[in-house]
Parts: sequence; structure tokens; C-alpha cells
Amino acid sequence: MTRKIRLGAFLPGGGQHIASWRHPDQPADGATSLEFHKQLARTAERGLFDAYFLADNLSIGFGGAREGGSARVAGFEPVTLFAALSGFTTNLGFIATASTTYEEPYNTARKFASLDLISGGRAGWNVVTTTGDPTAQNFNLETQLPHAARYRRAAEHVEVVRKLWESFEDDAFIRDKESGVFYDPEKLHESEHRGEHFQVRGPLNVPRSPQGHPVIVQAGQSDDGRGLAAATAEVIFTAHQHIETAQEFYRDIKARARGLGRNPDHILVMPGVAPFVGRTKAEAEEKYDRLTSYILEADGVGLLNGLTGGTLDLRGYDLDGPLPPAPPTEGMKSRQALIRQIADENNFSIRQLYQWVATARGHFTVVGTAETIADTLQEWFENEAADGFNILPPWLPTALDDFVDLVIPELQRRGLFRTEYEGRTLRENLGLPFPVNRWAGARAAVQAAE
Amino acid sequence: MTRKIRLGAFLPGGGQHIASWRHPDQPADGATSLEFHKQLARTAERGLFDAYFLADNLSIGFGGAREGGSARVAGFEPVTLFAALSGFTTNLGFIATASTTYEEPYNTARKFASLDLISGGRAGWNVVTTTGDPTAQNFNLETQLPHAARYRRAAEHVEVVRKLWESFEDDAFIRDKESGVFYDPEKLHESEHRGEHFQVRGPLNVPRSPQGHPVIVQAGQSDDGRGLAAATAEVIFTAHQHIETAQEFYRDIKARARGLGRNPDHILVMPGVAPFVGRTKAEAEEKYDRLTSYILEADGVGLLNGLTGGTLDLRGYDLDGPLPPAPPTEGMKSRQALIRQIADENNFSIRQLYQWVATARGHFTVVGTAETIADTLQEWFENEAADGFNILPPWLPTALDDFVDLVIPELQRRGLFRTEYEGRTLRENLGLPFPVNRWAGARAAVQAAE
Repeated sequence: MTRKIRLGAFLPGGGQHIASWRHPDQPADGATSLEFHKQLARTAERGLFDAYFLADNLSIGFGGAREGGSARVAGFEPVTLFAALSGFTTNLGFIATASTTYEEPYNTARKFASLDLISGGRAGWNVVTTTGDPTAQNFNLETQLPHAARYRRAAEHVEVVRKLWESFEDDAFIRDKESGVFYDPEKLHESEHRGEHFQVRGPLNVPRSPQGHPVIVQAGQSDDGRGLAAATAEVIFTAHQHIETAQEFYRDIKARARGLGRNPDHILVMPGVAPFVGRTKAEAEEKYDRLTSYILEADGVGLLNGLTGGTLDLRGYDLDGPLPPAPPTEGMKSRQALIRQIADENNFSIRQLYQWVATARGHFTVVGTAETIADTLQEWFENEAADGFNILPPWLPTALDDFVDLVIPELQRRGLFRTEYEGRTLRENLGLPFPVNRWAGARAAVQAAE
Repeated sequence: MTRKIRLGAFLPGGGQHIASWRHPDQPADGATSLEFHKQLARTAERGLFDAYFLADNLSIGFGGAREGGSARVAGFEPVTLFAALSGFTTNLGFIATASTTYEEPYNTARKFASLDLISGGRAGWNVVTTTGDPTAQNFNLETQLPHAARYRRAAEHVEVVRKLWESFEDDAFIRDKESGVFYDPEKLHESEHRGEHFQVRGPLNVPRSPQGHPVIVQAGQSDDGRGLAAATAEVIFTAHQHIETAQEFYRDIKARARGLGRNPDHILVMPGVAPFVGRTKAEAEEKYDRLTSYILEADGVGLLNGLTGGTLDLRGYDLDGPLPPAPPTEGMKSRQALIRQIADENNFSIRQLYQWVATARGHFTVVGTAETIADTLQEWFENEAADGFNILPPWLPTALDDFVDLVIPELQRRGLFRTEYEGRTLRENLGLPFPVNRWAGARAAVQAAE
């Protein structure tokens, strides 16, 4: 089978760009409108996207929400939202972000297993650690955990969740009315996890889904983050401004996975891309400028502060002057470095910098025609920079419609993208293997040896 | 407006009665079938029920699930399930159980606020403390918390959740595209909670729903439980075998609420009732006997053990002999006392006891015609024993269909039950007041004084 581009779509109802809710096309109440999210899900499915992707926060502070100009200040919790949306779609996957820092693994395992069952095997879990003191203060702490401690906890959290997802073997349920045997107790397993952060006996009270268990997604960029991703992720969401850094990341992740005995084809690297699509380059640029014009200064400054872990308070600085140095942070180390890199490379003023990151928060922004955008995606896809992309339409629904109506057909013409879904589960569509339950695997190995 | 009976429906897809999955009418895979749960929700809405109600557990041990004969061993997590079901219904409320013992209040507040938004104001939270060592062992503990400690934590958990639900005032969102003002920061509030168990700064990142916030439901029977319910509950689910104990409970709760300055009409007492409906009494009894015949001994014994907090291991006892004494428990104190009371009053053997509690786990079981069942409900409703009932159809879907097709019309003929929904939100249908946001209330009070 020819290798195809995988596509996720980031579709927050409040819009990706910080000021997108001011765009005439975008419903002002999109962030809290179930109807609008349904419309987005249906469009993504029409475009044959692999998955609808949502970020998540456990506080309102992230990305300049405190200033009164952000539509991202409040909205749905992603897992409950996706449970609702799954009923109005058939093939589209749903990848929800959830924190390893402020949830218990039993609860995490359970809500994603439940979403996976509800959707018929279309769930994914984007594993994150949660940064920022404002969030810590919603969970009985004064300050956030140090970076390394967060990642140790995250690694163990994922380990526990995976064990819990193997509580029932796939054929544990007999459901024989005549004998009264509902399930085979031999095929129900306790996890008996005892680790540094968690002691979890199990079993989980949710069975496996048609895809075995949810697809595991990660977005870590730091050394800790890459290590965790290479060990456990099946899809990696990543942020790059240039093909060169994307290639370095891609090759590093695949090498790390290989080093851990994993098949590198079973870990898909998907950089984020924010597309402004025009019938001409000028039209695309006009769309970019229009969205930029909606940003209020206070929100732009708040966004930069939020994206750099709350350590870069720019109030009082000349917005047309350079970005001042910032103190080190325990939160979002890589994102902070990326923002700094963008400022330095482009010689951006503070204003130019927030205008640029307002679109996609450090992800790759492409402005052009369907052809030139497809050229870029193809170049990345064919040169070890990407297995696919997470598309971040800067405003909604029009920028998503543009991508579906203009770019997707161009990718299909080039044979780079599917023309129909390959399967019903997210895993089938992504071309990822069905995860063998380790208990069933162990039994099969014993039987083979006998 | 004449006072009307309120009705909730407990509809676990695996069936209420421990062996109901063996009934020919019940789909053997009902516990994990979204389609079956959709069908149940639609029938409940056709019957004009106020709400679909689901219990919850954070382990598989509860109620005899370990023996291999229970369909309740695994299923959906209720909040995600209800998010999905809300899309296929219009007026039906959804009351999900969630634990105050093993979740963080920020996460609890958020998932219920999200369900409330998704459903357009039809969510309720059944507040419980979680008992049992097997569950504690899924959350980093060896043994469960003592009864009193669980209730102290529960009271504070509810307090924090209610504060978080007031983060945004109802009119906080301006969404003015022209000025770029999305919300009024003056109408966003931190909770600043600092208590014995929780320190939660807030605000919550979900706005209020059309019903203000989810309806708060409780089921405590012990003195601690009654105190918590009188202070915070809007609906109380309770288990009684006789009108006399139901009246004692009803009057006690209303008196406690009055003593706390609450309007006793704003706290609805709804005992559980498991109905076997026949066109004749003999037909109803035949239905009861048939379901009883499906219980396997091991599951019956496991059920009694589970219902008494895991302290009553009956393996090895003569099943046709009396119930032995049990050690005191820190879990489900009231349920253990109720089970004992049923055994003593009826002079039940172990076998007879599990056969009786298999239907409704200690709730009131009525076996008769639509007329005699309506007589009983009317008697309780008109004599300070109940404001409504939580109906627990012993098997599904037929026992629910029977209730909707036979008992509901009889209640309607008597003028005791609605003939159409009064409103769109759960709160409107239950006749409960819209909760005034305390920040808006405080502002209004200041303005009135000026």
C-alpha cells in the first residue's frame, strides 16, 4: 500500500487564532455551541480527516485569556464534547487532550475507554503534562511541579493507563444466557501496579473497544518529552517553522523508537500547519492581514506571556521594540525557546511577534494557493519531515472549508491522500496495528511453547 | 400549580436485577451497547420521565461482579455516556453519579458543567462517597477512608464545585466583535477556596448553562449523609421498604432543610421503587419468579457480600440457613443495616435474602397491576413519604416499557403526573428554582442598598 498523508484537524469552536471570533464568518458563541462543533465535525469527516483534535487546559490562564478578548477562556471539556459529537459522525476519529499531572490514572483510563466504546473505536488520548502555577493552584498546590518531575509522573501515568486498558482480554465476554456465565474470570486481570507516584490494583471496569484501546498521542518536544513519546506514542504532534528542524525531530524520534525495539512506522510524526488558502497568493495574504487586524494589544501581550509559561510580563514595554530576555521557566520550556527563535530569526518586534504567533502559537503558518500549500506538505511528507499534518484552520468554519474544498482535492490528485476511509476505527485509518492484549499474548506464547 | 409526582429512571444497560441479562428480552450485550442505551433514553423520554439516572463505581467489585455472572462488571462511564445520549433526546434529564472521594473538585465541576452545556441544561450530579477497599486500591490507598472522613471530604468537595460553578456570571459574555470585548473580566470570579482537603483558586473554564448549574442529587441515609443532603441536595434518592421509614426520612430531611434556612419544597425526596407490572397480580408474580430463577448461587452470595461492604463472606454457609452476624463496616453502613433488617423482618434464609435484594439492592419492590402500583405510589406521594420516585425496572427494556405503557397512563388519569414536559431544562421540569449566582446576587444587593 502506498504511504498516504495522515491528517488531523484542530477545531476549537472559539477559533484557533486568538482573535478569530471577531471574523465575520465565525459564530461569536462558537466556543460553547454544540451545533457549531457538530458542523465542524461533519466538515472534517467530509474532508476524510483521520481525526478531530482538541487541546485542553485546566485553568483559564493559557494564551492570553485573562484580558477579556479571548473566546478560548471557556468552553467544553473535550472528552464529553467528543462523546456527543461521535453520535453525529461515522468514521472521524476524536483525539482529546488530558493531563497526566492533575488526574488519577484510573479516571483517565476510564473516560478514554468509555469514549472509545461510545465511538466504536475512534478515540485517541493526547498525553500532556500540565504547566503553570495558575493551574497548580486549582489542584491544591502553590506552584507547578518541576519539568522533570512532571515527565516522570507522566511516564508512570501512561504506564498505568495502558495496564488498565488490558484488564479484560478481547474475548473475555461470553454472555451465555443458558449457563449464566457472563464473562470468563480467567480473562479478567488486575494491574497490580506499584510505582513511585501511583499504586493501582485494577482491574478497570470498562472492556476493550473495537480498536483495542485508544490511540496514544503526544506532543513533547524537550528531551524528556521526546523520550516519553518514542517509548509510548503512536502519533506525535509537533511544532516546527522549517523543514530542517522538522527533519531533525522526525529522524530523532524514529531512531529513538527503533532503539527501543519499536517499529518506526508505528509512530506517526504530524507537525502542525496553519493554512491561509487563497485562489491567488494575494488573496491568501489578504486573509492573513485581515485576521491580524482583529488582535487587541492587551490580548497579544497576554498571549505571549501565556505561551512562555507566564514568565514574560510585557506590560509597559514598547510594543514596537524587541522582545526582552525572559527568566527560565519550569513550564513549556520548548515552546518558550521556539517563540524566542521566531523573534530572533525574523527580527520581530513584540507586536510583530504576537501577530505571528496569534495564528498558530508557534506552529507552521502557510499562506498561499492550494497548489503551493500542497507543494509544501508534499515536500515535508516525502523528505522525512512528516508522516502527516495536524491542520489548524486559523478561523472557522471558512478556513476549514477552504482546506477541505481546495487543498484536499489537490492532495488527492497527487495520490497523496485517501479518497475514502480505509476503516471504521481511528487505528485502521491511521494504519496503526491493533494492540495485542499482553495477557492474551502471554497465553498464546505459552501455548505455542507446549 | 398542583403538585406532581417526579420520576427518575435507573436504566443500566446491563439490567438492574443481578441476573436480568439472562432474560430473553434483554440484549446480552446491553451493558456496552450505545444503541440499547439510546433506545432506553428514548423510551424514558416518551414516558415523560424527569431524568435518566445512573449509579457508578470506581472498581468492578461492587455487588457480586467477581463471580463471572454479572453484566454489571463493565460498561460505560456515565458522564461520557450521557453526553452521547443527550444528542438523541430533547427534554430528558441526565443524572450521573460521581465520587467525591477519588476525584478532584476542579475535574468534577468541569465535566458536569460541560455535560450541562452539551445537553442544554439537563444535567444532574449524584454526589456520593465511595466505599470499599478494592476501590481505595485503585487510588493509591490500601484501605478505604473512614465513614466520617469521607463525609467531611464530600461536604467540602461539593462546596468547591458549587463555587467553581459560579466562576462566570450568567451575563459575563458580551461577544462584541466590533470592540473586541469577548467577556467582562468583572464578571469572572476566582473561588479562592482554602479548606481542610482542598485549595482551589479557580475560576472554572466552563460557563454556566441554561439551568445555571447541574441539579445536585444525593443518596446518603446515615446521619452524616442526611446532614450533607439537607445542606446541599436538591433531589434525594433513598431506599425504604415501608412507608413508615420513608415518612420518618422525609420529615427528617424537610425539617433539617428548614432548620438550615432552606425552602423544603426545593429538596425533592425520591425513594427507589422496582416495579413488576402485570395485567393481573398472578402475571406480575410470574415475572418476579422468572427473573429470580436466573440467579446463580455464587452471584447471589457475592451480591450480599458486595452490598454489605465486603465484610460478609458467606461462602461455606448453608444457603437455606439464616444470615450470620457481620463485623462492623466503614463502608455503606446504612445499606448493611437495611439488608439485615430485610432478613430479620421476613425471617429470610441467605438464599431468600439474595433473591429479594437481587432485584433492587434494598429498594422497595412492588409486584402487581398498574392500579395497585399506582395506589402505592399515590399513598406515598400524598402522605409525606415521597415527592416522586426513582423507578428501577428490574430488567430491560420490557419492565421499562411496562411502566411507561401501563403505570404512567394510570398516574396521568389520576392527575398525579405530567402529560407533557413543563420546560426544557431538568430544573424546570423538576420545579426547582434557577440558582442565583452569588456574585450577581451580591452586586444586586449592593445596588439595591445604594
